[in-house]
Amino acid sequence: MRIHTFPTPQSIVDPGETVRGRFAVVIDTLRATTVIAAALAAGAERIIPVAEVEEARKVYAGLPEGAALLCGERGGNRIEGFHHGNSPLEFTPEAVRGRTLVMTTTNGTRAILACAGAAKLALGAMVNASAVGRAAGASGMDVAAVCAGTRGFFTLEDVLTAGAILSASGLPEDGMDDLSRLAVDIYRRNAGDLTGALRGCAHARFLAEAGYGKDVEYCMGLDRLDTVPYYAGGEIRLTSN
Amino acid sequence: MRIHTFPTPQSIVDPGETVRGRFAVVIDTLRATTVIAAALAAGAERIIPVAEVEEARKVYAGLPEGAALLCGERGGNRIEGFHHGNSPLEFTPEAVRGRTLVMTTTNGTRAILACAGAAKLALGAMVNASAVGRAAGASGMDVAAVCAGTRGFFTLEDVLTAGAILSASGLPEDGMDDLSRLAVDIYRRNAGDLTGALRGCAHARFLAEAGYGKDVEYCMGLDRLDTVPYYAGGEIRLTSN
Repeated sequence: MRIHTFPTPQSIVDPGETVRGRFAVVIDTLRATTVIAAALAAGAERIIPVAEVEEARKVYAGLPEGAALLCGERGGNRIEGFHHGNSPLEFTPEAVRGRTLVMTTTNGTRAILACAGAAKLALGAMVNASAVGRAAGASGMDVAAVCAGTRGFFTLEDVLTAGAILSASGLPEDGMDDLSRLAVDIYRRNAGDLTGALRGCAHARFLAEAGYGKDVEYCMGLDRLDTVPYYAGGEIRLTSN
Repeated sequence: MRIHTFPTPQSIVDPGETVRGRFAVVIDTLRATTVIAAALAAGAERIIPVAEVEEARKVYAGLPEGAALLCGERGGNRIEGFHHGNSPLEFTPEAVRGRTLVMTTTNGTRAILACAGAAKLALGAMVNASAVGRAAGASGMDVAAVCAGTRGFFTLEDVLTAGAILSASGLPEDGMDDLSRLAVDIYRRNAGDLTGALRGCAHARFLAEAGYGKDVEYCMGLDRLDTVPYYAGGEIRLTSN
């Protein structure tokens, strides 16, 4: 069993070797994959992730009236004319039940595209880490954990989440590459105070300063949810099709 | 002051933003930058790093007889017909004093090329970490520490070395990105047993199994040397030109 963790999608040099045919997990803890897990747990039917704002508007316009919601952020904030931003706290059952969410998220979408050849592609966050880890461990496949990072930068919250997922997976350490081992190690050392572990971290600090401190706390809450979202054929659902 | 650490050269998304005009440090602890520091400390005049074996032979053939040595490895071992492999212990004063070394090293060369726009480009290893860190800290420039990794993979030894270098630099933590902070943290926690920290790490294990265990020990020896190699104009010397 081989288990690789990538600090960013850009750092996948040979996807044919390290992603194709595997159980891949895309991780964008602050906040895209947390939002995805929360929205599906709240009853959203599916999520269509797209890279660009204009593309999101087009996809939305093509869906039946009342069936869909436009979601996403730029610079951390809700996009003008969109129903929702990127705060997991907004995605309540009242808001999303039965709906399709058209969501634009730069880092997360890029990470999903980087995993195109995976046999299964799950979306992982701290809020559903153990559920995703168990699914990865039970798959019998090699695993690729792909951290979304921020514009190519390594972000601690995603590596901590990879550690939480791998830690719950039951996968053997001796199949793990260096970053997988490091992720498990720093997750275990910080499990008692995951929000505190982000002190000084660039993206958590940015969000707190922009008024989203409560989001950061929510996003670092281990195993709030038991949902495992899967991406397949352009959309994200709770089942893996 | 902004300080970024990149897990691999491939993960530099926007070199114009994060490398250009900076003090860059390329780190390939096992073993290229260790060899470079050791060879220059032993009196080699300069090192010409090239990516490919055939290119190395051509460069060598163009140099005066007796002035140069061919060095480098493939699969960890000396290349046929080359004078030296990639073991720092081979580069004694008797072997290299006054010579030009033509060296082929895949990961290291790629990392150097990724830093083409840097104002200064130093080569860092554990054996010269404090000297390189002090030079970076004294430069007054923003810093980019670029880990060579292995074929795109994050390697712990390079991140530990980045931590040792930044730790010695005196640069302020609040200018550091997530990986720089993490590197400093794991370096400090493992400073008492740097070789032990690599237990289970892919490349250290590979080298030990190939019979290069003594190299790994040498390479993890903090501050054996006081040399700061700089790359400029296609060659590496102790002065920054």
